[in-house]
Amino acid sequence: MDKMNAPKITVVKIGGHVIDDDQALNSFLKEFSAISGLKVLIHGGGKVATTIAKQIGIPQTMIEGRRVTDAETLKVITMVYGGLVNKKIVASLQSLGIPSLGVTGADSDLIRSKKRSTIPIDYGFVGDVEKVNFSALDHWISQGLVPVVAPLTHDGQGQILNTNADSIATAIAVSLSQKYEVTLFYAFEKKGVLMDVSDESTAIPEMNFEFYQKLRAEKKIFEGMIPKLDNAFLSIRSGVTQVIIGKNSENGTRITQ
Amino acid sequence: MDKMNAPKITVVKIGGHVIDDDQALNSFLKEFSAISGLKVLIHGGGKVATTIAKQIGIPQTMIEGRRVTDAETLKVITMVYGGLVNKKIVASLQSLGIPSLGVTGADSDLIRSKKRSTIPIDYGFVGDVEKVNFSALDHWISQGLVPVVAPLTHDGQGQILNTNADSIATAIAVSLSQKYEVTLFYAFEKKGVLMDVSDESTAIPEMNFEFYQKLRAEKKIFEGMIPKLDNAFLSIRSGVTQVIIGKNSENGTRITQ
Repeated sequence: MDKMNAPKITVVKIGGHVIDDDQALNSFLKEFSAISGLKVLIHGGGKVATTIAKQIGIPQTMIEGRRVTDAETLKVITMVYGGLVNKKIVASLQSLGIPSLGVTGADSDLIRSKKRSTIPIDYGFVGDVEKVNFSALDHWISQGLVPVVAPLTHDGQGQILNTNADSIATAIAVSLSQKYEVTLFYAFEKKGVLMDVSDESTAIPEMNFEFYQKLRAEKKIFEGMIPKLDNAFLSIRSGVTQVIIGKNSENGTRITQ
Repeated sequence: MDKMNAPKITVVKIGGHVIDDDQALNSFLKEFSAISGLKVLIHGGGKVATTIAKQIGIPQTMIEGRRVTDAETLKVITMVYGGLVNKKIVASLQSLGIPSLGVTGADSDLIRSKKRSTIPIDYGFVGDVEKVNFSALDHWISQGLVPVVAPLTHDGQGQILNTNADSIATAIAVSLSQKYEVTLFYAFEKKGVLMDVSDESTAIPEMNFEFYQKLRAEKKIFEGMIPKLDNAFLSIRSGVTQVIIGKNSENGTRITQ
């Protein structure tokens, strides 16, 4: 699609490191509020959910760095992601003059997902995105609102599902690209994708798919970055105009096809 | 205002007794989804917040039946009301084919409130409603959505405040009455306002302000009902067309001027 005359929109995803630190969150939200034009914010969960689950006495199981979401953990996640984190961000953005609307995928059927197969690993109430309700999203944006999306979706049968925030950011950015010229920015704690994970000066300015495959084959990509990069390449291949990973959108790693 | 040609809308408030009981909630939501035409749902908090606060180890103080909301309790309330309860209702309504949007007063600046004076009693982070954003609410309703409102508001400075759900229902019903013919239904566990709190057959079919004042002077009104009745009379005096208190809207107590 020709995006020459399409309105521009910026989709920003923030993760746990920012959410867990009040000061970092406030300074991020100030920067976010200064981005001109239309925008959407997707947030991850942070460690608060783990802390609260422990306090309530719900044992937490992680498999390959991913949380197993049993029924009790789902309640905690729904509370923390959909309530505590989401509303804290919304109230702060309102105080910065940004009219924001905090939602989960269940709200207005925004994100329909499918419970992940229990084979080979049973992650419990975890969902993979199936469909974004573009019309609902576009309505809110046209109303002048900044949607703030928590990493929760639903299956349409009344079941809420825990869903990866990077995947939600991709699904939303791709959906918006049918009308908008979309910049997708994965904000995280490093300057960009690093060649050496302990050295910020090794941030890669630009990465195309061929280069990514090469680095991955050579085991030069930090394992935790792989799902994020897969989402980034999926986005750029599916209609998103710009994808950037890093601490700030000016000098992070630019993803190209 | 002449409401002859105004579109009709039903505002329903549900309280803790329904929220705390999964089966009661499901059967309520089925009835709610069957109400024809435009509608808004406001929900209270329920006892889950108290249970979770205790599990986390946050002591709860009640003064005259009202919760003192210190900073830690506010976090629990934001999680439980804005996350757990609100999203459970939204996901259920979606499964019943009702396109619903779960919000707090912070979302889209829907309800601005003022922290209550600490004199004579310091209730902590409790807010009294100052202003409803009619335009945001009307946008969502016109978009075909059923707003589901949690009993949380904000002060516009980034502070979330715990707010009485009956008062929110009144504020929303009154605000909507500038365009709509509003029926406000306070759903609760009794058939209506009872002359004898232990006898359902003593439900009062209709109550005007004079009768209310008389019963109150004679100490015949159960104390817990007074804030609800004050809200009901405020609503009917401020533009709401019908106000009903009871188990179902057909045969509850009808409030008249």
